[in-house]
Order: sequence, then structure tokens, then C-alpha cells
Amino acid sequence: MNITRAAHLEFRVTDLARARAFYVDTLGFVETAKDKNRLYLGGYEERDLYSLVLRKAESPGVGHIAFRVADPSDLNAVAKLYEEHQCAVRWIDAGYEQGQGKALRVQDPSGLPIEFFHEIAQRERLLQRYDLYRGAHVMRLDHFNCQLPDVQTAYDWFTQKLCFHCSEYTVTESKPEQLWAAWLNRKQDVHDIALMNGVGPRVHHGGFWVSNQQSVLHTCDVLAAAGMVNAIERGPGRHGLSNAFFLYLRDPDGNRIELYTGDYIIADPDWKPIKWSINDPRRATFWGHTPPPSWFNEASRVESIQSGELLPVSEPQLRDRPDFVT
Amino acid sequence: MNITRAAHLEFRVTDLARARAFYVDTLGFVETAKDKNRLYLGGYEERDLYSLVLRKAESPGVGHIAFRVADPSDLNAVAKLYEEHQCAVRWIDAGYEQGQGKALRVQDPSGLPIEFFHEIAQRERLLQRYDLYRGAHVMRLDHFNCQLPDVQTAYDWFTQKLCFHCSEYTVTESKPEQLWAAWLNRKQDVHDIALMNGVGPRVHHGGFWVSNQQSVLHTCDVLAAAGMVNAIERGPGRHGLSNAFFLYLRDPDGNRIELYTGDYIIADPDWKPIKWSINDPRRATFWGHTPPPSWFNEASRVESIQSGELLPVSEPQLRDRPDFVT
Amino acid sequence: MNITRAAHLEFRVTDLARARAFYVDTLGFVETAKDKNRLYLGGYEERDLYSLVLRKAESPGVGHIAFRVADPSDLNAVAKLYEEHQCAVRWIDAGYEQGQGKALRVQDPSGLPIEFFHEIAQRERLLQRYDLYRGAHVMRLDHFNCQLPDVQTAYDWFTQKLCFHCSEYTVTESKPEQLWAAWLNRKQDVHDIALMNGVGPRVHHGGFWVSNQQSVLHTCDVLAAAGMVNAIERGPGRHGLSNAFFLYLRDPDGNRIELYTGDYIIADPDWKPIKWSINDPRRATFWGHTPPPSWFNEASRVESIQSGELLPVSEPQLRDRPDFVT
Amino acid sequence: MNITRAAHLEFRVTDLARARAFYVDTLGFVETAKDKNRLYLGGYEERDLYSLVLRKAESPGVGHIAFRVADPSDLNAVAKLYEEHQCAVRWIDAGYEQGQGKALRVQDPSGLPIEFFHEIAQRERLLQRYDLYRGAHVMRLDHFNCQLPDVQTAYDWFTQKLCFHCSEYTVTESKPEQLWAAWLNRKQDVHDIALMNGVGPRVHHGGFWVSNQQSVLHTCDVLAAAGMVNAIERGPGRHGLSNAFFLYLRDPDGNRIELYTGDYIIADPDWKPIKWSINDPRRATFWGHTPPPSWFNEASRVESIQSGELLPVSEPQLRDRPDFVT
Repeated sequence: MNITRAAHLEFRVTDLARARAFYVDTLGFVETAKDKNRLYLGGYEERDLYSLVLRKAESPGVGHIAFRVADPSDLNAVAKLYEEHQCAVRWIDAGYEQGQGKALRVQDPSGLPIEFFHEIAQRERLLQRYDLYRGAHVMRLDHFNCQLPDVQTAYDWFTQKLCFHCSEYTVTESKPEQLWAAWLNRKQDVHDIALMNGVGPRVHHGGFWVSNQQSVLHTCDVLAAAGMVNAIERGPGRHGLSNAFFLYLRDPDGNRIELYTGDYIIADPDWKPIKWSINDPRRATFWGHTPPPSWFNEASRVESIQSGELLPVSEPQLRDRPDFVT
Repeated sequence: MNITRAAHLEFRVTDLARARAFYVDTLGFVETAKDKNRLYLGGYEERDLYSLVLRKAESPGVGHIAFRVADPSDLNAVAKLYEEHQCAVRWIDAGYEQGQGKALRVQDPSGLPIEFFHEIAQRERLLQRYDLYRGAHVMRLDHFNCQLPDVQTAYDWFTQKLCFHCSEYTVTESKPEQLWAAWLNRKQDVHDIALMNGVGPRVHHGGFWVSNQQSVLHTCDVLAAAGMVNAIERGPGRHGLSNAFFLYLRDPDGNRIELYTGDYIIADPDWKPIKWSINDPRRATFWGHTPPPSWFNEASRVESIQSGELLPVSEPQLRDRPDFVT
Repeated sequence: MNITRAAHLEFRVTDLARARAFYVDTLGFVETAKDKNRLYLGGYEERDLYSLVLRKAESPGVGHIAFRVADPSDLNAVAKLYEEHQCAVRWIDAGYEQGQGKALRVQDPSGLPIEFFHEIAQRERLLQRYDLYRGAHVMRLDHFNCQLPDVQTAYDWFTQKLCFHCSEYTVTESKPEQLWAAWLNRKQDVHDIALMNGVGPRVHHGGFWVSNQQSVLHTCDVLAAAGMVNAIERGPGRHGLSNAFFLYLRDPDGNRIELYTGDYIIADPDWKPIKWSINDPRRATFWGHTPPPSWFNEASRVESIQSGELLPVSEPQLRDRPDFVT
Repeated sequence: MNITRAAHLEFRVTDLARARAFYVDTLGFVETAKDKNRLYLGGYEERDLYSLVLRKAESPGVGHIAFRVADPSDLNAVAKLYEEHQCAVRWIDAGYEQGQGKALRVQDPSGLPIEFFHEIAQRERLLQRYDLYRGAHVMRLDHFNCQLPDVQTAYDWFTQKLCFHCSEYTVTESKPEQLWAAWLNRKQDVHDIALMNGVGPRVHHGGFWVSNQQSVLHTCDVLAAAGMVNAIERGPGRHGLSNAFFLYLRDPDGNRIELYTGDYIIADPDWKPIKWSINDPRRATFWGHTPPPSWFNEASRVESIQSGELLPVSEPQLRDRPDFVT
């Protein structure tokens, strides 16, 4: 089974027109397709038809996160794995999401609704259509960040069953130290998915790659000018962990995205993960800024792949934030 | 008499729609007014109604360059000065150019068609309307650069009669050294007008200020993506003289503008000018790149303020380029 | 009387070696001279021998702020003005500060210790010595920001007696509105001095110009890497008022500097000031971030020009911060 | 056999002190080790002890280029492959290059001297030691670019025998079109090695990754300030092919490096390569600039892995440059 990368994310939004004004008109996401209940969006660098789906729903949340697999036959192997572990599994017909081939959805052991697929319609890449660039100059989806009550169990699952590699991780200061969060990759950068200790299962944010720091700063200027200054939740700043330059935004429904740039490539399979202490003040923001409480408290609840209802959440096993955040 | 700054520039263009596609649609100049034969454009930082006028004409060229004076009464003093020196003088009615009060046009001793005015309609400044920024993110007009056969005489006129200050200048390597070019200011940066030895009278370019190097690089990307790669004549690069980061563009008629950023402020009246040798390889481009021959050969001819005909040009007194440019 | 610009600032520091490690070794200020009790520092763009003086003292604070005048004879006019208004005046011998000619110090009506001078030794400008650039790439002193209990009175003094111009200002939401702060210039950018309502007389910060946003971001990275993350008090961010991109730093003694870039030129004497409301959330930080309480509470007390003792401070007439800052 | 990435490059230099002044003092490469005849250098992001070796020699050239393999056992498989194709093979003892385990050198079918290794000493990563950043802020080795007389044969070898993937390629305009150049990767970006039609076997340049465009521009400024303006051969500019922002530099011996940033990640094994025509003016420089003739004419000859002598070169099968380059 060969998972290649984080591929797309489905946000539930209560007002498609309002969400479109945020993502397309202001941030400059490319609208590549739509149907009655959904807008399909992407970045300038991508060839896949979309990497962000906005779906009309009664409340905010995440419908699913999706990984691409290298070969259609991988889907059966994935289904078998989850079935063996008593996870709910559901096959999705080709075309249920526009341009996508037959897909598999699972409710993973942590409760995350994950889609696996191989086939996806291709579109013209706009990387060098600089004349069309607007807003945040979003290039591509980079990663998902999930809050889970039991990170160690989820870490074991992703690394042992799905062959994710750990690039960096955070531990508690207790003795013995416990795993507080982990950044896991399949593609060769810092992560395709981060697992973070907290109330969950929830999707904390979808991380979208931009090419440079200027894109991040310009996004702040654009949002402020457009009267959307409240969308800026945290940053801009640099993460110690991952070294990325970041900005966290809340869409009009409260779903969160991160603009992200400047991490690094990991090309060796024997990469030795970097360890951080939860209370290192430079870990979350290298420049020492404290995240706002909302950044820890709030995240998107996730759907049951079977009922479409939002799943209940549980309290985390460990304190969900550094000691210096109240 | 108090001249405050370079204020606007009138280009002759043979096709207003084509010029608009270049300046407005691609470079992002703001279109602020128009009439039957003219488009009025400006930058995001400016309050004046316009800083660039595109006027329909049979051939390319420059109608006039314009300086603002501090007080309406300055206009009479300016008229008197030029009349005393047998220069053609012509009063322009208020409103002849949109939003502009009564103005004075002169054919200066070098043959340059110069307008002086005080009153100009104000518009909303868009500096913080980042949501509207497009293309080159042009902020404001910065300066004019003129090619003249006799720089020393023009230098004397501008510094002694119009109270311009010299910030930097270039001399020949001959003995005694001769003035090859001079950068002169009224506002507190490197220049409002540069006088450069060459075939003239011609206006070599209008210089427009952008906020940062990224704007310059992005302009190259945008032009290439839009199929206008031939507009890029020279740069991007850094000038040794002025320290500015630059890009020279040719509009569809061959009129030239410079995108310009990163010079410096000169707040002291006793600023000691910086001297450069014409053959210093870091003078024109600090990084050693040689300008293309077109940059020396080609420039916009200027109008007679009386007939509207383009003036004949003369050969320069000194060689019009460094020895290392063939 | 012609004041040309903000010229230098004297910080009291309790440990010269520690201050040098911050300003010179980390931020990259150029050390241009020293004597037993003082270090003289400057930026890469400046020709004056120095723009920042660090003086050994028992406690933090500001010895004086200094403006340059256009002509030596201006000093007598300045002395006469202050004497007529019963302000303490003290002549300083040439050479008392290295390289400086005869100077005048006054305790202005607000209690600020201000020096006026004309003559100052020149040094090699390092603007194009990019091979020497380090740290924050500080270019030049830009402005002083002062907290005063009675801004209106100080505003009247600076504008009416010293011919400063107002570029932007802030008013209260009360009826009638009252002047809360004013940005005043002599050189042609947003300010040489800002007057801000607060406990005073105090100097809130010295503002130093850097060339671009990258310099500001890199400074944060450098400080964090050097173990000086606590020096970062506020920012990076963009000011609504002035449009500048900023970072506020506290030196090891708590004296505050601002790294500042991206405001704009004001070349017309009839510039119409821009008005802001104290409670506009985009005024202080265009991106909506709230300044930390320390930014309002803490500032450098100033010296008596006669005794060298720090002056007592008074409570401000108006609330010293926006309503949304607690 | 699993090759993970381009790992290091050995330049022959005739004067180690002069080369050190260029690479270490000016460009800011980190010197991590040295022995009698060699300096070992690296970038800030790397953990390997070095990625650039400067070796004292009688003439310029390239000693070898090196790829890392995922497992020590891969070396035997590599040796077997080359031996089966009658290529010279030579085992290198552990420690022959500092910190490196047992390695294999081969003279590949095109004549390139290639080293394969697995074990390499690790050093402290300096990615977040921003206080140490200098010069070009070089992060890591990215790729090799080689000029070869027969690109098609080399392409077949690298893709079929060594499992490299093609990201982008260039073809002639002849019918049938012929392969003019190919960009091949093992790690997930545009290339670990490029094969370019030309006189060869030669190594055209080693490509080093920098984090952003500002690093490239600053490098130009630093070189000009340091009196090394002649080191700048081509750029800065953007490549159409790869989308990277680039600068080509010649070291004091004429060996060439590229500073390179802003290409893209390729995470899918079924990536469809991008095809360019050799005469597309935006291919080499997206902004239309023509490379100088030296860029095509000059490159580093390579050593025999057995004798250490520089190999003779042959004329290419196809014209070695676009029609618009004379």
C-alpha cells in the first residue's frame, strides 16, 4: 500500500456564497468546478481538479480528509486493513466528487473520516500563469492537522500500519515523557498529517502552501483592506517546529486554514526525527509569541462517514496546551 | 518659486485600447478618468487625480512632463523666468487636463516641453486598499529621465534657475572631466529629473515607484505569463548610482517606463553629491550587467508646446554610453 | 529657523558591553566611535558619524533626542525661542559628543530634553557595502516617539513654533473629539517625531529605518536564534496609521526601538493630514492585533538637561490606550 | 537499489585560500572540515557533514558527483550494474572523504565520475541558527547539471537502470523531435540531475538551494560590494523550465554553481513530464533574457576515477543551444 500525499479536504460551510467570497474572491483560490452543494477549489501549482471542497451543510465541520494512493489496487489493501481493525468502511462511486474515480472512505481508529483515492481528473496547472495570481497566491494543499485525545495510539497506527514517517514531534515534560504531538509525512516534506493532543477527533486546520513570506504578509493586508480582519487568528510568524512561516485564518464558518511556507525537504528514509518539549517557548512560535486560547480551544468537528452526523468529541489524555498558555 | 516634485507625464500612444491593456490590465495602473483622446492613470499611493496621461496620437512620444509648484502664484514667476530667456510659454486653461487648474507650459532651453501647475483634483488614496492591488503594484510617479545633447547647460539651468539639487552625477574620464549626467531633486529623494547625455531632446523614461523588489520580480512574471515578455528591456537589477532596484519596460508604442524602488531619502540641504565615472561597471548596474544598445539608442521624442509636432533631435556633445557598451 | 530632521538619540544603558552585544553584535548597528562612557552607533545609509548614542548610566532612560538644523545660525534662533518661553537652555561645547559642533540643549515645554546642532563629522556611507550587512540591516534613524500627558499643547508648540507639519493624527471618540496623538515631520516622510498621549514626559521609542519587510522578519529569526527572543515586544505587523511595517524591540535595559519600513513620501507642503479614531482596530495594527499592555505602560524616562537626573512623570489627560486594550 | 538524492560534488580548485574566500567568506558556505588538500563545505539546512568538496588540483574541473543510497547493501547492487555494462568501478575506503563510509565510484556510460555512498557523518543542523547566516544563505545541495554529447542514451540509462523519473524535458524542433535535455529526480523536486546536450562529458554546474528570491538578490549585492562582480555570469531570473528563480556564479577557477529556489514538489509517481521546445524564448529564462554564450560554451571537465586525469570531451550530437543564441 503506497499513500503518496495529502490530497484534499472537505469543509462544511453554512453559506456557499459567503465562503466563496472568502476563499475565491479574497484569498484567490481557483474555483475549478461546482455542483449544487459543493464548490471545488485548488491552488495555482496543482494539477488535480481540486484540493479543497466546500460543501453546504447545516453547521461547520469537516466532511473528510483525503489521501491519494499510488495505484488503484492500493484501495483494496487499505479497505482490508481498516476492516480487519473493525473500522467503518464505505466505497464511494466514481464521480461522487467531481472528476474523482472510485474511492474508499473509512472512519479511522481515532474517528477521523479519511478518504483514499487514486484517480482524479487533471486540470491546467496555473503555476506560471502569474497574470492570474490574486490574494494569498495559494499554491497547493500541504497537510492536515488533527486534534485527538490519544496521540500515541494514532501515531502507532499511522506509522506502523500506513507507513508514515515522523519528521518532528513534541513530548511532555513529565517523567516518563509522553508523546504530545507528531508531524508525519509520506511526501518528502515535514508533514502530510500532524496529530496533536486535544479535544477530538477534530480537524484543527488544513495547511496550504504559499511560495514565500511576502504572500503571507500580503494576505494580511488584503484581508484587512477587505474588511475581513477578524479572519486573522494567529500570526504571521515562524514555527520553531517545522521552521515554516505561517498564518492561521478562520473562514466565515470558523473552519481554520493555515498558510504555510518555508519548511524543508526530507529525502532520506533514515531521517532522525527532531524532538521538542511542549514548553519550549520557541516551539510553536520561534519568535516567542503565545498562541491565542482559541487556537487550542476551537477546531472543526468531523463527520461520521456513514450518517454524515458530526461525531461527539472526548477530552484529551494530556493537557492540550503548553503551561504558559492559559 | 517653489517646485515641489515631478507630478505627471504625458505619453503619446497610437492605440489607446492597446496601451490600456498594457498599463491598466497588466501593470495594474489605476484608471482614474478618461476623455475622448486621453486616459488618466495613477498609482495606489497618490492623491492627485493622475500621474500618467496616455494621449491618442499619430506616433509615440512625450507630450509634456509636469512639475507641481507649491503655490498658484509660483506660476507667474515661472512664466517670467522662461520669457526672460526667450523660451516659448503657453498658458493652459483650467480643465484642459481633467481636474487640473490653470497651468503653464514652456519649451525649456533644452527643448523639453514642461508643464507647471498647482491645482489638481484629489482622489481617494488607495495605498491601504491592498485588496485592489494588481500587476506591478505601482505606487506613484517618481521621476523623469531625459536625454539631452548638452547636459552641462541643462544642469546649470535646473540648478541655478529652478533650484534643483544634485544628488549624484556622472563624469567622463577625459581631462578635464565633463559632466555626463546628473540626478536632480526637489523632493527629498534621489531625483525628480535626471539629465543624461544623448541624442535629444528626448524623454528617456518615466520612473514609477514600487514598494519593494518583489513587486519588480512579480511584474516580470506577470508580463511573461501575459505574453508580453518583449516589454522587458533591461533588468531587473540594482543601479549603483541611486542604489535603486529597477526594471525598464517598453510600452506597446515603445515609450519607456522604469519601475524603481529602494533609493534613499536626502533630508539635508547640504547633501554632498556622489560622483561616478561613466566607465565604472557598477554605476549603471551594480551587478555588472551591460545595458542593451536599445537602452541608449531609443527614447521618446518630445512635442513642441505650440505646434504639437515632434521636435527634431541633435547628436550629443559627448559619447552617449560607456566605453564597454558598443 | 530650519530644522531638517531627527538626527540622533541618546539611550542610558547600565551595561555598555551588554548593550553592545544587543545593538552591534546582534542587530548589526555599526559602531563608529566610542569614549569612556559612550558608544556611538549608526546605520548603513547614514553619513553622520552616529545616530544612536549609548551612554553608561545608573538606570535606563533617554539623555536627549536631537534634531539637525540647516545652518549654524539657526541655533541662536532656537535658543531665543526657548528662552522666551522660560525653558531651560544649555549650550554644549563642540566635541562634547564626538564629531559634533557646538550644540544647544533645551528642556522643551513638555519636558523633553532636545538637542539642536548643525555640524557633525561625516563618515563613509556603507549603503552599498552589502558585504558588511548583518542582523537587522538598519539603514538610518527615522523618528522619535514621545509619550506626553498633554499632546495638544505639545502639538501646538511643534507645529506653530518649530514649523513641523502633521501627516497623520488620532482623535478620541468623545464630543468634541480631542487630539490623542500626532505624527509630525520636517523631512518628507510620515514623521520625525510622534506625540502620543500617555504618562510623560517619556520617550516611547526611537524608530530606525530598514529597507524592507524581509529585514524585519529576519531580525526576529536572528533574535530567537541568539537567545534574545524576549527582546521582541510587539510585531512584526503593519501599522494602519503610517502604513509602515514594524517591529518593536526592548534592549537589555528596557529602552525601546522600532524597526520601521514602508511608510511614504510627503512632498507637498499642503498635504492634508489623515485622521484616525483611537478605537479603530486597524489604526495601531492594520491586521487587528492588539498591542501588549507593556507597550502602553512602559517607556524611557528622560533627563533634566541641567542636573542629568530623570524627570518625574505625570498622568495623561486622556486615557492612554484604546478601549479594547485593557 | 534505492538512490535517495544528489548528495555532494567535488570541485577541483587551483588555490584553496582563494576558493575559500569565495565560497566561505563571501557566499557564506559553512566550512565543516578540512584536510591537507580539501575543504568540506555545506549549507545551513543540511545534516550531512558536507555537500561541496573543494580539492586542490592543477586545474579546474570536477572530481566526482555523489548520490546517497538508502542502504549500504545498495552499493553492491550498483557496482554489479555498472560492471555488467563494462564501466570502470572503484571502491573507496571509509574515511577517504572525511566522515564518509565505504563508497563506490564509477565512470558511467557517459563518462561521468559518480560516487555512491550510504554512510556519512552527521553534524548540527544550522537551519534555525539565523544568527550565523551570511552571504547567500545557502541551504543545501539540490542538483547537478551535466553537459553530454548524447543525452538520449544517458536519459535511458538514468531512467531505466537507476530509476530516475523525468520531471521536465526539452526537445528539438526537428521532425522527429529529439531529446535535447532532461531533468531527472529521485527526491521529490524537479531534479537531482539534469542532462543537457553539449560538449561533454562535463559538469555544467552544481545547484544549491536557497530559501527565497531575496537571498539571490542579496548575493548579487554582496558580490558586487566585495569586488567580485565578475563572478555573476547569468541572472538573477526565473527559469520557465522548473519555474525556479536562479543565479549562475563562476568561482575563481571558473567552476559554476547555481543558486536555485522556487521550483515545486513532485509527490506522485505518475507525474506527467512537462515538455518544452528548445526555441521557446521563455524556457531558459521565463522573462526572455538570452543566456550569454559562455553559459553554453564553458563547463567543468571531469576526472577519470582511475587516473585522476581530466577526460577528453566530444562534440554534441545536436546543436548545443537555442537558435536565438549565437
